[in-house]
Amino acid sequence: MTRYKLILEYDGTSYSGWQKQENAPTIQQTIEEAFKQFLGRSVEVVGSGRTDAGVHALGQVAHVDVEGEKWNCDTLMSATNHFLKNTGIAVVSIETTSDQFHARFDARERHYYYHILNRRAPLTWQRTQAWQVYQGLDCDAMTEAAVCLIGHHDFSSFRDSQCQSLSPVKTLNKITITRQKESLLVHVSARSFLHHQVRIMVGTLVEIGRGKWRSSYIQDILDAKDRRAAGPTAPAQGLYFERIDY
Amino acid sequence: MTRYKLILEYDGTSYSGWQKQENAPTIQQTIEEAFKQFLGRSVEVVGSGRTDAGVHALGQVAHVDVEGEKWNCDTLMSATNHFLKNTGIAVVSIETTSDQFHARFDARERHYYYHILNRRAPLTWQRTQAWQVYQGLDCDAMTEAAVCLIGHHDFSSFRDSQCQSLSPVKTLNKITITRQKESLLVHVSARSFLHHQVRIMVGTLVEIGRGKWRSSYIQDILDAKDRRAAGPTAPAQGLYFERIDY
Repeated sequence: MTRYKLILEYDGTSYSGWQKQENAPTIQQTIEEAFKQFLGRSVEVVGSGRTDAGVHALGQVAHVDVEGEKWNCDTLMSATNHFLKNTGIAVVSIETTSDQFHARFDARERHYYYHILNRRAPLTWQRTQAWQVYQGLDCDAMTEAAVCLIGHHDFSSFRDSQCQSLSPVKTLNKITITRQKESLLVHVSARSFLHHQVRIMVGTLVEIGRGKWRSSYIQDILDAKDRRAAGPTAPAQGLYFERIDY
Repeated sequence: MTRYKLILEYDGTSYSGWQKQENAPTIQQTIEEAFKQFLGRSVEVVGSGRTDAGVHALGQVAHVDVEGEKWNCDTLMSATNHFLKNTGIAVVSIETTSDQFHARFDARERHYYYHILNRRAPLTWQRTQAWQVYQGLDCDAMTEAAVCLIGHHDFSSFRDSQCQSLSPVKTLNKITITRQKESLLVHVSARSFLHHQVRIMVGTLVEIGRGKWRSSYIQDILDAKDRRAAGPTAPAQGLYFERIDY
């Protein structure tokens, strides 16, 4: 048995998220089927974490155990990508790893970014790749607010009601907001996030950016420990799972 | 009658190019229909030039004459964009202009760029937005060759057999190649281009970048004045009509 570490890129648009489920196409299942077509037997692809329907990835990580002969990683990557043709999913790299390595439990830091297009004109080829916000956004106000989220906090206000995490306490290591012309990128890093945490943080920062709330109000939202205090959940299509450090 | 200057962005993927034709969806026709739905009468949208099927635009320019009352440009833009919803076409700006202004004949300089993704892994969300080249590309060799194309030349070798231009002589003002990680951008500027000129130049530079030809060979290709001397026509989906100066 050999364990392989995969780095995966995908367009989440036509998938019901990462995790296998009945009667809906998922990324995990599509990759498992590609492996099965090549290897002639079933494997389980263990991801570093789920992504929601519509969320994209540049650097999702997964591991997979393959019985029998040890494959050349280049061969395995080409073969898998062949069977993933036109799925919007690609294996960016494969390497052998210790059978102690676990894609989910060994992750030290997860990096996401969220892409906002701040403009009046409707989106064209970016329609499924970003969130369009019409009203002008005050990037400085958003950054001022964002800074208050850094560190060890009870993020109950930024947690979806479906969240299965045992504790609402997480440590946000980094959050930055950068603008280049009409593009706003919100970068975040943490060991792990609550369900919808990034999207609720972004939805809340956008309310501040468009002037609905002052930036200092974010502290009240944190203190409320109540989902209803925060802004709306930003849509899935702007979110990218960028990278994981182990 | 008021003449309006439009700046247009579009995803060319599902269109048979700019120009109206029977039995195929085109960008020109889709925009004319949006105007008709709002104005209740037909107008002609005159573009700065055609784009091929699959080619995108960030800053295509067109003019349109509207009879009767003068519209507020913001109203006209919002209304047109409303009727363009989910077409992959957007009006980025509208302004009134002199009835002497002509989107095609007054263009001083047209700017395009071509996006190559130089990587092994198949494309995901960029599938219809870039050209994937597997083999490693030598950007310096490509730049060395590209410089030979700048200036006033007979571009017969870089001209599609269907080209209707009276003369094969054009002046290329600028061509630059920049790489950022796996993305290569080829920027070109000229008053006008021959049919497929940009795509044939890019296809030829890629042959040089992957080592099939030395960079100095581009001079032989120019001198041959024969389409068969140059490289293949790069696919449409990597090409973006960026901007026009008047």
